[in-house]
Formats: sequence, structure tokens, C-alpha cells
Amino acid sequence: MQDIEVLGCVQQGIDFIKKIKKKNFLFSLVISYTETCEIPGITVAGANLDFVKFTPAADAEFLHYGNCKCIDVIPMTPDGKPTPAILTKVALEAASIPTIIINAGSKVLPNLPYLETGIKPGKNIALEAGLDRDSVTRAVEYGRIIGRFLGSSTDCLVIGESIPGGTTTALGVLKGFDVNAKVSSSMLSNPVKLKNKIVDSALKRFDTDDPFTVLANVGDPMIPTVSGMLSSASESTNVLLAGGTQMAAILAFSKKIGFKEKNTAIGTTSYIIEDKTANFVEMIKQICDVPILVAKLKLAESEISGLRSYAEGFVKEGVGAGGASIASMLKIGLDSSTLLSLTEKEYQRITLQSQT
Amino acid sequence: MQDIEVLGCVQQGIDFIKKIKKKNFLFSLVISYTETCEIPGITVAGANLDFVKFTPAADAEFLHYGNCKCIDVIPMTPDGKPTPAILTKVALEAASIPTIIINAGSKVLPNLPYLETGIKPGKNIALEAGLDRDSVTRAVEYGRIIGRFLGSSTDCLVIGESIPGGTTTALGVLKGFDVNAKVSSSMLSNPVKLKNKIVDSALKRFDTDDPFTVLANVGDPMIPTVSGMLSSASESTNVLLAGGTQMAAILAFSKKIGFKEKNTAIGTTSYIIEDKTANFVEMIKQICDVPILVAKLKLAESEISGLRSYAEGFVKEGVGAGGASIASMLKIGLDSSTLLSLTEKEYQRITLQSQT
Repeated sequence: MQDIEVLGCVQQGIDFIKKIKKKNFLFSLVISYTETCEIPGITVAGANLDFVKFTPAADAEFLHYGNCKCIDVIPMTPDGKPTPAILTKVALEAASIPTIIINAGSKVLPNLPYLETGIKPGKNIALEAGLDRDSVTRAVEYGRIIGRFLGSSTDCLVIGESIPGGTTTALGVLKGFDVNAKVSSSMLSNPVKLKNKIVDSALKRFDTDDPFTVLANVGDPMIPTVSGMLSSASESTNVLLAGGTQMAAILAFSKKIGFKEKNTAIGTTSYIIEDKTANFVEMIKQICDVPILVAKLKLAESEISGLRSYAEGFVKEGVGAGGASIASMLKIGLDSSTLLSLTEKEYQRITLQSQT
Repeated sequence: MQDIEVLGCVQQGIDFIKKIKKKNFLFSLVISYTETCEIPGITVAGANLDFVKFTPAADAEFLHYGNCKCIDVIPMTPDGKPTPAILTKVALEAASIPTIIINAGSKVLPNLPYLETGIKPGKNIALEAGLDRDSVTRAVEYGRIIGRFLGSSTDCLVIGESIPGGTTTALGVLKGFDVNAKVSSSMLSNPVKLKNKIVDSALKRFDTDDPFTVLANVGDPMIPTVSGMLSSASESTNVLLAGGTQMAAILAFSKKIGFKEKNTAIGTTSYIIEDKTANFVEMIKQICDVPILVAKLKLAESEISGLRSYAEGFVKEGVGAGGASIASMLKIGLDSSTLLSLTEKEYQRITLQSQT
């Protein structure tokens, strides 16, 4: 596959690709919330603070309907940088990959059927524990049930996420598990200092190695839910963790609760790999032996500046965009040029739609 | 298959069986509520009125965990007649058939992950419309999304239901669509007169042929949800409607909104067919050309009186018991004797459990 690069455990990645090439895929999107995103300067997801809590539900609605219902517009910055959901939607649609939404504590509920877990939104880890320990246990348990169900009927379960502020809680979990982590950001100027300050003070609130307590203190509801899903699904099928930094945090926690490395890979975009403020490949190597599949997208070649911005360091990844792109390449042999042209058409459709 | 009898459109039923024999099955249970069940004398589901609203959630929990969480006991009448979920659980477990719960207006939420539709519980049709017309539209639309998703990854989607009082609303829908219906009951002495009185007065509240208005007036939230699921799922895969009377009402409404007859069958228990107060096969013939697969269960041979009662006219069907049994026979070749012995073991397990 010319447009997929394999990093990390290369041979394992090649074997993984062989297992799922031309097979059936299922895309799942876990939507969630952490009040950590309300800290000024933390996230670009959503144009402003009133808007940000709608982003996960709006992403889910956009994947399903091609428009949003809980808000009037497609999530996009005022200067035209669209939600990565646009890449995800185009890839899933082109390859006819079925999609399911999982609500693990989103503050706003999407207007479509979704798998409900009953998990509450996460708290601001700068101020208090992100969630209580019982919620972590429940998220893992429910995640396991969901992973067992979804894993039972596909050759490859792709898991993406949408949680504003999620790279900060991911940094917390990585540092909490002693991973030397430098995480990515949806913004050009990664607020590294701010993130580390928040995380370091949160880490001081407790002194234990218990993984559930670590996660409760510095994490968010998405991480234990996806870890539970990975744990059970990887027993019976292949799992592609679709994302960047957050998937590293999921692996760090999953290593504690158990999962099958052989059936697991990360799928992400080249923009995460190219992020010099982060150390993605290095970070994954520290955690476990899981290969990284990289979608070499061609957004830099786009004539649309909002799409080009991805290659210039904005947004980079999210809503499982990298993993969904890889799934479409592997399922029906799409290449990056075709994906780009489909994405441009979709971008034009939604900008026209929002003008009318 | 010696323990499956084909009735109605026999050749179509034989063809249907051929298509799904030894294939993959997915079991979905739609849980719902209609306040119609609060009319004294309408249902045996749940030992008393306080209990009855817990039954759908408790059935769902029992299928997943082997015990209930929202209540302390397994749904069972005081004299030991168990919920049909016991038959369903045994069959699904023996054949490793994955299961998903869909909440379409249950008053109590189950303690497990489920597909949420946001649809509200139905009202008592003796007093007012069961639901508003917009809710019917939404239930159909969401059902279609769910059916498309679940249908995309299985050779046969089995759909069961748990809604106390559901045979009365089903009778309403059947009569509303001019089907000459005599419906079954979970009770030995079918309260036919009471059901007809409720339905006839409800039918007087409106005068239109619009299927959505008919359903809104005399139906419940489960019927449009399952009809939506059938409509989309039958386009891409086979659908086994697992139940008796309620599935007839679903077919009557589905005929109005569209579905693929060729890919559809009813799966039920022999106790529904043997019910002399009802006219199941005749009723289905009036509605459409869909075959009826009948699980010839052997509960009459049981040494446990609570199980024997099914063959004596109690409970008869529910929670997709007949369809789940048929799915287990077709997937791994189970016979009724094996199912009986597994069911007896399960009955002993739960009665022991409830004594401790």
C-alpha cells in the first residue's frame, strides 16, 4: 500500500496489514468530554467555549448525516479549518464502512442512535480528579462488553475518538504511567507548557501506582472506555486504534488491564508523525510492541487553505481520520490522491451548504 | 432441521433456511414500555404492577449477565414461571450468538451498554394516543439507522422484543390496519374481551388511513422502531422477526413503509401456533408473504413445572425466545432436546441463585 507507511514494529505492522487487507471493517467513534477543555488556550476544537461542548456530538452527526443537528454549522474554525470528521466521513463513505457512535460522557447527546454507557462527563483535572475510580471501573467493564459485541462481527474494529481537551488528559495518563511523553495539539503553537503545568499539578494530588486511581485522577472517560473495548475486541479480531496522542494514553492504560498486542495497531495521519513538538513513535515504543500505520495524506497539495492547514500543523488528526483513511485504503484500495479529491468535494459541499 | 417447522409460505421458508444455515447470526432485543400494561389484568409479565416496568431492563440484564441488576431477582411469577428470556439466553449462549440491546422507550434503563434512541415510553392507549406522530417518524428513522448498521455485519439479524402489555397495542395496530386479528397472551386465560374493548375504543379516537397516525394512536414505541430496523436491514441481509403477535403488527405497519419480503421470516415458538384463542398463521397470511419458522420446543417434557407451563398455555413466547432457539438450531445444529436440557440446568442455576 503505497500511501500507508509502517513505523515502530515494522514486521508486525506488515503482518497486521496482510490480515485485514480487503476484509471487512467497522468504524466506532467514542464521543466524550472533559471539563479540562474549558481551560483557556487548551484546544482549538470548536470555535469558542460555548461551542466546544457540542463538538463531539456534532462530529458524530456529521459522520452520519453529512450535516449537524445539535448545532447549525459543521465544526470549523472561523478561518475555515474544518473538523477532521470531514476526512473520516469521506473515507468511510467511499469504502462503505459501517459506523457506530459510542457515548462515553459527551456533554451534548447526538441526534442519532448511539451506544450509551451511562458514563458522566469528566471533570477539569486542573481542579480535581477527572473521574471517580468507580467510573473508571465501569467504563472499562462497559467498554469490554461493547468491544466484545463489535469485535464479534468484523475483521477489523477501528476505534476513533472525539473529546475536546483530550490531549491534555492523555498527557496526564502518559506521565502518570511514567511514559516520557511529548503530546501533539490541535493548534499550531502547541501549548506544551500549559499542558505540563496542569498535568504536573494534577499528578501531585495522589501517590499510588494503582492504574485505576492514576487514570481516575488525570484521565477522562474516553480512555478507560476505549481501553475496555480494545481489551475484549483484540481477543477475537483486529483492532486499529485511530488517533494520535490519545491512543498512546489508551495503550499505556491497556497494558495494565490487558489486551492482545498481536491483533492491535495504531492508525494515524502523517501530520502526527511530523509534529516536532511531539515524539509519537518514540512514545509508543516505550509503551508496548504495537505497530503504527501512517496514512500519508496529501492535504498539502490541496488548493483549499482550510485543508492545507492540516499539513501546516493545525488539527492534524481526530475523529479517527487517520485510521478511517487507512481502513478505506485497505478495504477497497483507495489512494491518497482520490481521498484528497473526495475531501475537497466534500469541503465545497459543506461550505456551500453553510452559505445557503 | 427436524425441530423447525415451516408454516405459511413454505417454499420461501425453506429457501430462507438454506440462506442462513450455518451462517452468522446477530440477536437484537428491543426493550420498550407502554402504559397500557398498567391496565389491571392485561399482562403476566412481572409479578405485580410495581415490578412490571422493570421487566424489559431485567430481561436485557439477564441475557447479558445471567442475573438482573435493576432488580434483585430474575423475572418469574410467584409460582415459578420464568421469563422467556431464559430460553433466549440458553440458545444464544450455546450458539455464541452476539447480542445487542436497543432501548426504544423502556421506563427503566438496563445496567449495560445499549443502543439509545431517545424515544419516550408509550402512553396507555385506553386513555390517549400511545405516542405522538413525530415520535413514530423518529422511531422509524432511528430504527432504519440501527437496522442498516446491524444488518451490515451479519448474515441474519434476529430481532426480539420485551414490552409488557405489547400484545394489546399489537392488536390495536393489527385492527387499525384492518387485519382480522386474534392475538395471543402471556396468560392462560387470554383477556380477549378486555383487549378488544381497549382497542376498539382507541380506534374510535381517529378516522384516517395514514399509517403513522394509526400507529401513533393505538401502538407503542417498539413497533415503529422494529419496523424501521426491518426496513433497512432486509435490504442488505436476512431478518428473523423473533416473536408472535407483536411481529404480526410490525409486518402490518412495515408493509406500509416498505421492506424486503424475500429476506424476511418470522421465528416463533410452537406455543404461539398452538394457541387456540389466537389465529397467528392466518393473520400473517392476511398481511404479507412472509414464512413462519416454528421452533418445536420440548418444554412439555420437562420435569420442571415452571417450564412445562409454557406448553400449557402460559407465557408462550417473548424476548425473542422462539427466534433465538431457531438461530441456535440453524447456526450450530442444536436440537430441542439439547435446548431443553440446557434450559433446565439454567432454571436450576437461577432458582438456586435466588435462594442464596
